[in-house]
Amino acid sequence: MLDLAKRVYDHSFRIDPIVRSLLDTDFYKLLMAQTILRRHPQVSATFGITNRTARVRIADEVDEGLLREQLDHARSLRLSKGEVTWLRGNVFRGQGRILGPEFVSWFENFRLPEYELATRDGQYELTFHGPWVETTMWEVPALAILNELRARSVLRGLGKLTLQVLYARAMTRVWEKIERLQRLPDLSIADFGTRRRHGFLWQDWCVQAMAEGLGEPRFLGTSNCLIAARREVEPVGTNAHELPMVYAALAPDDAALAHAPYAVLGDWQEDYAGNLRIVLPDTYGTTGFLANAPDWVADWTGIRIDSKDPIEGGEEAIRFWQDHGRDPRDKLAIFSDGLDIAEIERIHARFHGRMRIGYGWGTLLTNDFRGLMPDGRLDPISVVCKVMDANGHPTVKLSDNPTKAQGPSDEVARYRRVFGVGDQATMPVVV
Amino acid sequence: MLDLAKRVYDHSFRIDPIVRSLLDTDFYKLLMAQTILRRHPQVSATFGITNRTARVRIADEVDEGLLREQLDHARSLRLSKGEVTWLRGNVFRGQGRILGPEFVSWFENFRLPEYELATRDGQYELTFHGPWVETTMWEVPALAILNELRARSVLRGLGKLTLQVLYARAMTRVWEKIERLQRLPDLSIADFGTRRRHGFLWQDWCVQAMAEGLGEPRFLGTSNCLIAARREVEPVGTNAHELPMVYAALAPDDAALAHAPYAVLGDWQEDYAGNLRIVLPDTYGTTGFLANAPDWVADWTGIRIDSKDPIEGGEEAIRFWQDHGRDPRDKLAIFSDGLDIAEIERIHARFHGRMRIGYGWGTLLTNDFRGLMPDGRLDPISVVCKVMDANGHPTVKLSDNPTKAQGPSDEVARYRRVFGVGDQATMPVVV
Repeated sequence: MLDLAKRVYDHSFRIDPIVRSLLDTDFYKLLMAQTILRRHPQVSATFGITNRTARVRIADEVDEGLLREQLDHARSLRLSKGEVTWLRGNVFRGQGRILGPEFVSWFENFRLPEYELATRDGQYELTFHGPWVETTMWEVPALAILNELRARSVLRGLGKLTLQVLYARAMTRVWEKIERLQRLPDLSIADFGTRRRHGFLWQDWCVQAMAEGLGEPRFLGTSNCLIAARREVEPVGTNAHELPMVYAALAPDDAALAHAPYAVLGDWQEDYAGNLRIVLPDTYGTTGFLANAPDWVADWTGIRIDSKDPIEGGEEAIRFWQDHGRDPRDKLAIFSDGLDIAEIERIHARFHGRMRIGYGWGTLLTNDFRGLMPDGRLDPISVVCKVMDANGHPTVKLSDNPTKAQGPSDEVARYRRVFGVGDQATMPVVV
Repeated sequence: MLDLAKRVYDHSFRIDPIVRSLLDTDFYKLLMAQTILRRHPQVSATFGITNRTARVRIADEVDEGLLREQLDHARSLRLSKGEVTWLRGNVFRGQGRILGPEFVSWFENFRLPEYELATRDGQYELTFHGPWVETTMWEVPALAILNELRARSVLRGLGKLTLQVLYARAMTRVWEKIERLQRLPDLSIADFGTRRRHGFLWQDWCVQAMAEGLGEPRFLGTSNCLIAARREVEPVGTNAHELPMVYAALAPDDAALAHAPYAVLGDWQEDYAGNLRIVLPDTYGTTGFLANAPDWVADWTGIRIDSKDPIEGGEEAIRFWQDHGRDPRDKLAIFSDGLDIAEIERIHARFHGRMRIGYGWGTLLTNDFRGLMPDGRLDPISVVCKVMDANGHPTVKLSDNPTKAQGPSDEVARYRRVFGVGDQATMPVVV
């Protein structure tokens, strides 16, 4: 039956917006923003996009006008009343609001700040200058917009049935992965795929598939706040590299620099009253981080293993807890680096029963369109949005994988010295 | 946007009808009905359902009440004005109506006649008694209803995403077959899958996929009139076994019996003015039929190969044309028996360039859900609706495959003698 009102209303759309809500972002951005707002409201930080998949010339594929339209639309967004209610309603185990009133009222008035867009050598230079607490909020929507615009450009002009079969293939692929996941004992897995997703609706489908195919408690939830709210699953996440990177950039001397990663943890456990205690140890090398960690770091719930070979990283975590007299079986390792089903199975076979395991499954959950278009034109790319400087000081990341390192070379050298990072194994960055 | 009117209207549905139009049938039923109406309006005939896949107890799977509701709903259907217009508008190569005014005005007043339904040993005994021209019209809707009800019963209670993935898998499977078809030179293929389809909407999807994936002239059209009308593709079909079976049953003596299959062709070429001349030679054995055929049978456009091994049947057709001094490259062989992609490729490799080839692709186009549910519960079954008697005389079918033979054993013996049918190779009936 023709819904005349709908048809006429639809004609009034100026664009088909990719990001339609400020909640269409990862939960950990809000958690980090709350800490930034509380402790570092005056710090300014620049964020910038880097496409590590240099062979894909995004600026040739994605029209600049369309990109500006989408970014401008994202800047027009404000939280709705219902979204604020949802934010306030999230609590730790039934008590204690995760996001306090100061942060929520700041967020209620928030709009995404300005952006700068230039093109160089087939790539977009998209940068965000301003207060850290504001620029940090661009990371996820900027990446989601770029990735979805690229997919739209590749798919433009395909036939209706061809498109339907393309999605049928992608759905079948996701479901076959879920069927393999069903066989893993004591599985705990979450969607971490917002930033590199094929598109919002596709991520939303993937979350529903995980919810139906795995159910609770195996499917823990999603990092995407909007989808968590709509699908009534848990929003999940803790913190990311930008915290130690900015803390390090602001350190006045080498001693403060060496201490910076632990200072982050100290602030975090205070801000979240002992909740959300997942260590992300690899910003300046996991081995050194663990070797020099104060004993209380071993009290944290778990460790996220994000850039080292996961088997090596998992064994290292177990040794760390054992060395500190903790039982690894009480501890949680969260794997989140370029996961796909075979990798998850490999990790599970190795570690199940030896410690608690969680998976943060990103790009190859929400954007596994590999091979579904000729020449891999729909394959996901490794595009990131990272903090570049803080109060004018360049930021540095070493990671456990030199391919993911970032920063001016003299600063990288200094950080390697301060954190005692020697040779590292290079691993290809899948996504 | 909520379409209130639609929601309220939807609440008024009593059932979800499977057959929603008298055009939701195969084109050749109308062509045959026109000849029956013109030449044999007084002949009565009984049609009945047989499930050759005895291991599937349809009556245990499909509720009798639901079956009656669907059959009753089909009986309530009448042609709409637009459907009549479509029927009148079908012409041979731009001139000459395929369906004449007498038939169309009969069809405008037509309703499906009564049915008789009983259950025996886990199978439905569904029979239709009455004038041949009326009972013949039940074949396709009765089969489509049974098959779709079975699918609905198997799928009841599955989750939304599980269902979506099931269809995603089936779509991918169809599309991969179409991609293989794209590689066959001079392909000409049509959908013949109405009666054993998974469901109407699924057949409709398959036709759209064939149209988009192959296009004209490779995709010739569909046997389903309703889908042909809606999707603006050609309706295709000529005639079936029921014509020689009834002509044979009505033959007063052995001489008339031996002549019956050729009498059918004589009437047919008169009724269709030399169009639609595809011989279906296997009702009482292809070899004898061709050996005894008058020379003018070799003037017909082509032969449909429906129950013999297709390679053997194709070679036999070529020999027949050669023996009669016709060039097989001017002739058309239509393969229509249990086809699937590998079989089509095998036939094409053998005969391409040696004669014109057409494929009538049925069940494994519109109902290839094999293996998509545990225990093959969604696999297609070989259920048929055949004419059982004419004016009280039992009908007989021998076919080239004894598995498909039908009739009382004394009559079968008589027919075998009259048509000189010796030993035949038994082949499993796939679908």
